[in-house]
Amino acid sequence: MTQLDYKRSGVDYAKIDPLKVLAQRAAADTSRNLARHGLTEVAASRGESAYVVDCGEFYFASITECLGTKALVADAVRALPSNSAGRTYYDSIAQDTLAMAVNDIITVGATPVSVHAYWAAGSSDWFADGARARDLVEGWQQACDRCGVAWGGGETPALAGVVESGRIDLAASCVGIVRPKSRLTLGDKLSAGDAIVLLDSSGIHANGVSLARKLAERLRDGYATRLDDGTLFGDALLAPTVLYAPVTEALAAAGIVPHYCVNITGHGWRKLMRHPAAFTYSIDALPAVPPVLNFIQRQAAIDDREAYGNLNMGAGFALFVAPSDAERAVQVAHSAGVGALIAGRVDTGSKSVVIEPLRLTFRADELHVRA
Amino acid sequence: MTQLDYKRSGVDYAKIDPLKVLAQRAAADTSRNLARHGLTEVAASRGESAYVVDCGEFYFASITECLGTKALVADAVRALPSNSAGRTYYDSIAQDTLAMAVNDIITVGATPVSVHAYWAAGSSDWFADGARARDLVEGWQQACDRCGVAWGGGETPALAGVVESGRIDLAASCVGIVRPKSRLTLGDKLSAGDAIVLLDSSGIHANGVSLARKLAERLRDGYATRLDDGTLFGDALLAPTVLYAPVTEALAAAGIVPHYCVNITGHGWRKLMRHPAAFTYSIDALPAVPPVLNFIQRQAAIDDREAYGNLNMGAGFALFVAPSDAERAVQVAHSAGVGALIAGRVDTGSKSVVIEPLRLTFRADELHVRA
Repeated sequence: MTQLDYKRSGVDYAKIDPLKVLAQRAAADTSRNLARHGLTEVAASRGESAYVVDCGEFYFASITECLGTKALVADAVRALPSNSAGRTYYDSIAQDTLAMAVNDIITVGATPVSVHAYWAAGSSDWFADGARARDLVEGWQQACDRCGVAWGGGETPALAGVVESGRIDLAASCVGIVRPKSRLTLGDKLSAGDAIVLLDSSGIHANGVSLARKLAERLRDGYATRLDDGTLFGDALLAPTVLYAPVTEALAAAGIVPHYCVNITGHGWRKLMRHPAAFTYSIDALPAVPPVLNFIQRQAAIDDREAYGNLNMGAGFALFVAPSDAERAVQVAHSAGVGALIAGRVDTGSKSVVIEPLRLTFRADELHVRA
Repeated sequence: MTQLDYKRSGVDYAKIDPLKVLAQRAAADTSRNLARHGLTEVAASRGESAYVVDCGEFYFASITECLGTKALVADAVRALPSNSAGRTYYDSIAQDTLAMAVNDIITVGATPVSVHAYWAAGSSDWFADGARARDLVEGWQQACDRCGVAWGGGETPALAGVVESGRIDLAASCVGIVRPKSRLTLGDKLSAGDAIVLLDSSGIHANGVSLARKLAERLRDGYATRLDDGTLFGDALLAPTVLYAPVTEALAAAGIVPHYCVNITGHGWRKLMRHPAAFTYSIDALPAVPPVLNFIQRQAAIDDREAYGNLNMGAGFALFVAPSDAERAVQVAHSAGVGALIAGRVDTGSKSVVIEPLRLTFRADELHVRA
């Protein structure tokens, strides 16, 4: 079977990046506006996953994140004849959307505090489907409760002509606080010798979905194809994204402040070298790969470089901790209900991610997430 | 000509509202999560335009708002043969989007502090149009500078299958602080006798756009139709929304704390009775109606009830102030570059908006913005 790659699956980062660079520069220019309000920007948060402002007694962090196209998978799987239970899957989709924002904001050490929902439908009809609307609302509320955030409000526009008919564009914004200020984890303490603790993912989460959708088109049974473990491909794709806030809050309660955190999303394991400093991230132990990701890799005929460079391959979130904290961090994660393992260490050396069991190296020039 | 109304222009609020009610109840339930973080919700902000959390030393407010479909107008007007200057209009569109969030967050007394951009395109190609991308970035930055906010970051996904090809879904989220806490304006001080000060709009802003688009389809020359003042209909529609943050900040600097504020958007002047209490809002003086709104009213053959009940008709923002502050509030607004007038007063009486010069009354049951 021909290999499926990202350009072929419809997202061309080369076209987006020039705008991103322009926007990041313009955004950085606006930092000076904070002085009028007696506030200062935490400049090191520029280029990180959430924006951090110093308001004296504590920091606050903010973020807006998009689900992407995973709702299209829910729409397709809901319509399968095999969905005899009539699931809408929008409870899962709600959790995915919230996770995009929450799992990002916690990387800077923030406790997520409030979220706003952004649910932009192609027409008012979208909201008239009662079962789906209820699932979306209930899934959102449960995800909020699990993360300890207050759902502050949201926007539910009907945008005919902008959003496709019958579809919905889902996003979430989140505000968090870093208190005490010593919980800030922008990576200034990241050092050679630190342990890399990887937290388990539940499956594809919400990244690599375009690839999965293209793959479904090529499979004779599409989303109804059975994985080795008997699950349907579509159901497996729709396992909701793990919420990692309970882990980071439990770590704080246990007195463990990570030196750095990475939410493993669109760039897969390349994102382990997200921090601006030059370190070699050496991985010597791998988490189990969720069956759905194994299936995608095999069926899309992509090699380990493509798979680990784009998908989470079982690791949804990375904690970089002092070696003396590593074992305890794993235990705290387990207690919070999330599988974890000490997967490797931060080494001196040229900036790269070295996945030793796979004899795979990603070099610095293979990750572009900063201007 | 047949009258154009909102249902016919494609937005059916009856279908959205049941979901909104569900979501508002579920959201209110999550308030208890704040206690874990030593924070409390300002319950009176539920149902207001921004969500407010008490963090001890001050309040913070948060909001996510959508532009709506105004970018479709920009796309159409950019393509007109009359656009010899090659304007993209996305600098205006950027300001409109930011205004949706900023003009809402200031209603609670917040100083807008940071914003995130949400720019979700139908494909990566959207971002490859350099002139349009530059205008969007520059317009966004200028609007941030004008409001004194820091642009913290954003999201620029390409969402083929969710967002229409060639289109973009634009939204903004904003965080603000209310400091000192006495600046909080949730309306507990709103009283009979208060003056209603209306701040000038620049035109349609970003509400009533579906109606304007339907109208353009019916006009022989569409967006190229000339208004009485010689402006093209399309150009007039694309006058950017006024940013009112400089006014509310100048009021604070002048020691004037409004008793309540309303951002006049989708429900037009009906929104003057947004506050939950029962008052009669008596209007005895009207701002000048921008030519583009006069044109829409005439051409769409809608009466004053339909026009003032849905469009801003020259008033983009309302301040409810102590009568002794009214004259000075007008002067402060003028000094901040925004026209203003004392348009009426808050009276005891059944909940309604009475526009005396037009012999027009909106009763309480004609506004549904709360659960």
